[in-house]
Amino acid sequence: MAKIHLPGSKPLKKKFKIHKKVGKAPGTITYMGNRENAISSLDVIAYKDEYAEEYSPVKIETLNEYKEGEVKWINLVGLSDEGFITSLGKLFELNSLVLEDAVHTEQRPKVDEYDNYIFGVFKMIYLDDDQNIIIEHVALVLFENLVLVFQELKDDVFNSVRQRILGKQGRIRSRGADYLYFALLDAIIDNYFVVLEHISEQIEILEEEVYRNPKPKTAQKIQELKKEVLRIRRFVAPVKELVSRLIDSENPLITKDTKLFLRDALDHCLEINESLQIYREMAMSLMEIYMSNVSNKMNEVMKVLTVMASIFIPLTFIVGIYGMNFDHMPELHWENGYYMVWGIMIVLLLLMLIYFKKKRWI
Amino acid sequence: MAKIHLPGSKPLKKKFKIHKKVGKAPGTITYMGNRENAISSLDVIAYKDEYAEEYSPVKIETLNEYKEGEVKWINLVGLSDEGFITSLGKLFELNSLVLEDAVHTEQRPKVDEYDNYIFGVFKMIYLDDDQNIIIEHVALVLFENLVLVFQELKDDVFNSVRQRILGKQGRIRSRGADYLYFALLDAIIDNYFVVLEHISEQIEILEEEVYRNPKPKTAQKIQELKKEVLRIRRFVAPVKELVSRLIDSENPLITKDTKLFLRDALDHCLEINESLQIYREMAMSLMEIYMSNVSNKMNEVMKVLTVMASIFIPLTFIVGIYGMNFDHMPELHWENGYYMVWGIMIVLLLLMLIYFKKKRWI
Amino acid sequence: MAKIHLPGSKPLKKKFKIHKKVGKAPGTITYMGNRENAISSLDVIAYKDEYAEEYSPVKIETLNEYKEGEVKWINLVGLSDEGFITSLGKLFELNSLVLEDAVHTEQRPKVDEYDNYIFGVFKMIYLDDDQNIIIEHVALVLFENLVLVFQELKDDVFNSVRQRILGKQGRIRSRGADYLYFALLDAIIDNYFVVLEHISEQIEILEEEVYRNPKPKTAQKIQELKKEVLRIRRFVAPVKELVSRLIDSENPLITKDTKLFLRDALDHCLEINESLQIYREMAMSLMEIYMSNVSNKMNEVMKVLTVMASIFIPLTFIVGIYGMNFDHMPELHWENGYYMVWGIMIVLLLLMLIYFKKKRWI
Amino acid sequence: MAKIHLPGSKPLKKKFKIHKKVGKAPGTITYMGNRENAISSLDVIAYKDEYAEEYSPVKIETLNEYKEGEVKWINLVGLSDEGFITSLGKLFELNSLVLEDAVHTEQRPKVDEYDNYIFGVFKMIYLDDDQNIIIEHVALVLFENLVLVFQELKDDVFNSVRQRILGKQGRIRSRGADYLYFALLDAIIDNYFVVLEHISEQIEILEEEVYRNPKPKTAQKIQELKKEVLRIRRFVAPVKELVSRLIDSENPLITKDTKLFLRDALDHCLEINESLQIYREMAMSLMEIYMSNVSNKMNEVMKVLTVMASIFIPLTFIVGIYGMNFDHMPELHWENGYYMVWGIMIVLLLLMLIYFKKKRWI
Amino acid sequence: MAKIHLPGSKPLKKKFKIHKKVGKAPGTITYMGNRENAISSLDVIAYKDEYAEEYSPVKIETLNEYKEGEVKWINLVGLSDEGFITSLGKLFELNSLVLEDAVHTEQRPKVDEYDNYIFGVFKMIYLDDDQNIIIEHVALVLFENLVLVFQELKDDVFNSVRQRILGKQGRIRSRGADYLYFALLDAIIDNYFVVLEHISEQIEILEEEVYRNPKPKTAQKIQELKKEVLRIRRFVAPVKELVSRLIDSENPLITKDTKLFLRDALDHCLEINESLQIYREMAMSLMEIYMSNVSNKMNEVMKVLTVMASIFIPLTFIVGIYGMNFDHMPELHWENGYYMVWGIMIVLLLLMLIYFKKKRWI
Repeated sequence: MAKIHLPGSKPLKKKFKIHKKVGKAPGTITYMGNRENAISSLDVIAYKDEYAEEYSPVKIETLNEYKEGEVKWINLVGLSDEGFITSLGKLFELNSLVLEDAVHTEQRPKVDEYDNYIFGVFKMIYLDDDQNIIIEHVALVLFENLVLVFQELKDDVFNSVRQRILGKQGRIRSRGADYLYFALLDAIIDNYFVVLEHISEQIEILEEEVYRNPKPKTAQKIQELKKEVLRIRRFVAPVKELVSRLIDSENPLITKDTKLFLRDALDHCLEINESLQIYREMAMSLMEIYMSNVSNKMNEVMKVLTVMASIFIPLTFIVGIYGMNFDHMPELHWENGYYMVWGIMIVLLLLMLIYFKKKRWI
Repeated sequence: MAKIHLPGSKPLKKKFKIHKKVGKAPGTITYMGNRENAISSLDVIAYKDEYAEEYSPVKIETLNEYKEGEVKWINLVGLSDEGFITSLGKLFELNSLVLEDAVHTEQRPKVDEYDNYIFGVFKMIYLDDDQNIIIEHVALVLFENLVLVFQELKDDVFNSVRQRILGKQGRIRSRGADYLYFALLDAIIDNYFVVLEHISEQIEILEEEVYRNPKPKTAQKIQELKKEVLRIRRFVAPVKELVSRLIDSENPLITKDTKLFLRDALDHCLEINESLQIYREMAMSLMEIYMSNVSNKMNEVMKVLTVMASIFIPLTFIVGIYGMNFDHMPELHWENGYYMVWGIMIVLLLLMLIYFKKKRWI
Repeated sequence: MAKIHLPGSKPLKKKFKIHKKVGKAPGTITYMGNRENAISSLDVIAYKDEYAEEYSPVKIETLNEYKEGEVKWINLVGLSDEGFITSLGKLFELNSLVLEDAVHTEQRPKVDEYDNYIFGVFKMIYLDDDQNIIIEHVALVLFENLVLVFQELKDDVFNSVRQRILGKQGRIRSRGADYLYFALLDAIIDNYFVVLEHISEQIEILEEEVYRNPKPKTAQKIQELKKEVLRIRRFVAPVKELVSRLIDSENPLITKDTKLFLRDALDHCLEINESLQIYREMAMSLMEIYMSNVSNKMNEVMKVLTVMASIFIPLTFIVGIYGMNFDHMPELHWENGYYMVWGIMIVLLLLMLIYFKKKRWI
Repeated sequence: MAKIHLPGSKPLKKKFKIHKKVGKAPGTITYMGNRENAISSLDVIAYKDEYAEEYSPVKIETLNEYKEGEVKWINLVGLSDEGFITSLGKLFELNSLVLEDAVHTEQRPKVDEYDNYIFGVFKMIYLDDDQNIIIEHVALVLFENLVLVFQELKDDVFNSVRQRILGKQGRIRSRGADYLYFALLDAIIDNYFVVLEHISEQIEILEEEVYRNPKPKTAQKIQELKKEVLRIRRFVAPVKELVSRLIDSENPLITKDTKLFLRDALDHCLEINESLQIYREMAMSLMEIYMSNVSNKMNEVMKVLTVMASIFIPLTFIVGIYGMNFDHMPELHWENGYYMVWGIMIVLLLLMLIYFKKKRWI
Repeated sequence: MAKIHLPGSKPLKKKFKIHKKVGKAPGTITYMGNRENAISSLDVIAYKDEYAEEYSPVKIETLNEYKEGEVKWINLVGLSDEGFITSLGKLFELNSLVLEDAVHTEQRPKVDEYDNYIFGVFKMIYLDDDQNIIIEHVALVLFENLVLVFQELKDDVFNSVRQRILGKQGRIRSRGADYLYFALLDAIIDNYFVVLEHISEQIEILEEEVYRNPKPKTAQKIQELKKEVLRIRRFVAPVKELVSRLIDSENPLITKDTKLFLRDALDHCLEINESLQIYREMAMSLMEIYMSNVSNKMNEVMKVLTVMASIFIPLTFIVGIYGMNFDHMPELHWENGYYMVWGIMIVLLLLMLIYFKKKRWI
């Protein structure tokens, strides 16, 4: 699980962690997250058109029972117990590479087809209560009558699917495991929109700040935002291709009917990618505006300085002349010398003001 | 319906709204627009080579009637009445995903082929009376003898098609539903050109402003324009691929003859995309010019300051010297000391002026 | 016909006109140019290996005559007479979309293959006597023994081809209509090089200006040039793909032998596109140099100001001290006080000069 | 072997060396590195499921012995002895181009399939004890039961593989030479992550520096970092395509089972490329922030100057007035003249302060 | 032949010449270079495994003689004699388009396959004695037992190949004409590396200059370098695709064995393109550094000005006060007034210094 703080909150260290399994054999099950004490627990929802039942917690031994026509959703929360994961893997005859990726929380999104199951890694991205962006690893395995989900934390992205099954809303109860697989994926993708909306709002706030009252901090915030968009894109952009691969796949596990729905999900992925692209361009625009504002402010400062200096430096020179102590300075003894100097200075001042007015500097 | 204000008018909030259906089952019909009270109404135009009749408003029950050889254009205005939409969907046996997208006003352009119909979502983009850019959702369903149109508002983008049918202009009456489908699409695409022309004019106005009298506000206007182009491109760019998919489609609903016309429409799409690309590059050029102008102005300000300060500060120093009160300052008692100082100062001034003239600062 | 003024001449309004046929039925013949009074006139050159004859002007009725083994080049000048165009279209059984594009002077380059002819729209780009870049619409239709050319104005881009036919230069007389089609296309493409050379010269002039004597106007000229390159690319870039489509086409109208020549033309198109790309990058480089020059100039101005102010402000302070009127200022009464002040000031001045010399500011 | 110094250490000369074999016949074995005195030495690890034995050093004559079912890993360290390499090449019937590339340390990554072996060149990239990035050439040849490795230096990137074989960890002992080939490649790729992590840390350090205390040197460090990323990408980016070519290859040397693992390695390559792309964008962001900071600092400096000058230049003018020596200056003789001047000056000062406060310059 | 002067030497006019054959029939032989007086001369090297003989100069009539099993390399130097070229073309039955391109020195690199020969145009790029980059046109025609080379100038890029043939080095004597063709191409490509190395050195020199002592001229030099890279890329980039086309070609003229070597050459082309790309990015980085240096210098200048002005302007104001001539100024008559003013001024100075120290401006 990785938190992203958006502009305003202080940035987290190590934003782009990369995996550290150097030197281990491929296929080694190594948990990479920071929830190491979490106990793995299993929930199961089994349903058919006629009924839906939820069992929680479930022991691993009972997973094997299967009733004709039932679809099972097995949800594993907590990925740090390697022994548990291994025995689960054995039960479902999962390839060791699958198990490795299932618990490897830094794994980028992927879809791999095996002989009798389809394995996928995705990233749930959602906002926590403090409006932080949470990125969480989730792995989905689709079998013929079963979807196996690996999660780090129990959270509520999948709650809507759970309710639709238990409350018999929509068509989900009357369809197979592939539809459940799609429904979970769809729930993940739907949550991306919430995060996009949050970013969109941040952009508007920054836009306001850049136009009204840009501060040195503002540039930093814009760059932070750009970095967030980069980071989210990294986990979201590959999903488009993965979904499109599921659609083109000839795997019998995915029915033609579900592919119609996946096409819809693909559509959402395209929209998300477009939005991220647009956000990136908007962040760059904001930076341009920011820089042009900095320059404009400098211009304004320079104008004030130039106007003040250009007016008073010559005048100071004039009064300096008559501060000289030469024995022979006829003007000093003129009756109206003092007033004439004032006159000259006022005329000069007016000429200056007209000049600067014409140049629109004042 | 979404309004875009071009530079000059105050920007609208929430420009890049994203869809908010998180947590709902896919295929749920949810109207996303802001015209929720609008009553759905149906218009029908039925025509054949020999005649064309317009019925308005029409009840849903009568839609089913069909005369041999007739082409029907059913126009639904108002998308907020979910019950109505659902019964319409049932009548035409539309997939629930189609109905969802038909009323989902934030849906990006798409074309989906189903067994006996082709479904498409497009965006009408046109100028309202205040020269605001209006983006409106429209969904078109092509059946064998029927085109079903979903619109949010009754507007006149399709009026030209209506007139051509009723007035028997051109070839439209002698052709099938696929040609009507093309004609509606063509009307939508033609309107893009009006908006492009409007943007092109805005660019010229901004160009004038940047070259003649750039203000801090100008940079903001340029960025606003860039954002508009981004936004329009988002809805317009996909159309090119959609039209080209219709052309390559082997669906019997689209005749080879109509494909010739679609090829023409594709050509227009290419032109539109090119124009948008050029507008974007021009906006970037404008921003560059703006920035170079800001720098040039700063240069000019600095030159005035430097010339004024460089001339008068040394002179002020000279008059300061003879303002000192030392007991022994022989120059003060020279007969022509005062005039000699003036002479020195005038020579210095001239040297300075020559120097700055040579540097082209004055 | 559209003129482009290069940097130096005053910019024309409406540079990126877009087509205005909104609301008309597709296939409507609408002339878009500004030569509406021009009378359409027909020239014909008919040739065989043994002879070549030119007929001008020719009446439409006589076009139909055909002698065995002859190749005919029919040249139509003047596109505003819709009736005339329509009857010509009927005579040659041209699709209404073809006629529409043939007279639609804003049409982008395209090639469309029909059952018994190939239709192409291209842009002639050449320099007029005032070195303005002229962009002119031309449409070419290739039949089995005939090439039909639609032009707005009679101009001399095709003169070289005409002379080669009449003077029996090269291989043109011994080949078919497809070679004539290629020769005309080749003449169009060859003229692009003249325009590219002109732009290349403009870039050199601007380069000289940027390096020697950059003025605020220079940035504007660079951007104008970039815009010209954009505009020309718009009409020139698609040609590459069109020629390559002609080469790949399996249409019997184009012989394998002529394809060899088209391959050569394709080569030229690649070269043109590369050159335009390079010009664009060079224009961007010029802008960068320009901006760095503006900054360097500012630096220079600032240095003069800083040197002058840093030297004379402290000196002025010193003379100010001894201009004070305190009753008790011992230095004022020292015998050599005045000379000591001069000494201090000269030392200070020298230290300053050394400091600035070391910083390379003077 | 090429060292890269990251920002902080002084840059090495000749970073982008290019190969110098101009004028030699292709296929000439020429060592390009700087370890010319190194003696070539051979290590062999031979293993089967039941046992694993290490022989070191091994004479070239004994390489030919082969036991049924054994996999052999022949590791050659030191590439400067051309005679030795040539005889090795003869022994294994390697193409002269293979030998050339095997010792050509500037060779970019490549994979070539020959009739009975697959040849690959890769780059090991790792950190030495001083945190310098070391780029080292390695060539791998896969035969049916043999992997032949060409290395410049004996280093420990492959140690983990060696230990897994000797210690019988994981599945390596029970699989063929193709799995060994994969395991070595995987060890190389895994080390890239260590280097990426190092770069990621450098970016964070630079980010800190840019935000807190940017110095002129900082820009240079950012550009150095960008250059390092460019350089690493050059050697790492092609690996993705090479691995994907191995996966798609129909060569019987690579079993379907090993391809599953290669697919995993491909995944890592994708992640590495993405990370490098992100690092590059982050470096560009840093540069933007740096530039905006420089501008902000200039703004701050200018404000101080403008405030100081704008306040004191007018005041100096005022006191200059009453330093004039005119015979008739009534104010000089007023009882409270001096105090009135102070009053005027204090009022002026306050007005100035309010003005600057309002502009937020102080 | 076109010279490129790298930064330092004065730029040549007309860097991007484009071909001037407008109006001529395609296939016309027109020499475009500037070596018009050069006499065409023919050299021939004929070799077999057993012997190799060089004939120079050779008369055109004798070219036709052919001995069984011999490979002939005919080298034509001097392209301005059109009659000579034409008779050569007739002798070898070359297409007129081939002859046109062979002497057209502005032709971009290309490969065209004809029925019994393969024609290629490439660019030799090498350094002359003054380290200028020379770009020279070369055309290679591969027949079954013959390679025909068209060169403008006799130069030594091919000397290494000549020596390998005559000295029987490497495998060249035992292979066919296709290997000779490859060897010549390889010699051309190898020379690109020399030029790349030269550019790489120029970048390092510029890097040094930008970091140590950037001058206004430096920006210009960087842009010149960028332009050189652009120009070289133009001639070098297409070679990659051409070589890859030769590899994929099914022409029997190129044996499978030679394709192995071409694959090696392709590898070099990829490396060259990558290097050029990297050089371009490095040039852009240099420009960024340069701009940031200009800004930093301005900052430094501004700080000096601000410190000097902020310290001395207030002090000058203070001494100005006591230079006023009011009758009633009690301080003037205080015993220690003068010293108190000094005290105040010193305190003020110290405060200022502390302030600027804290801001790190001094």
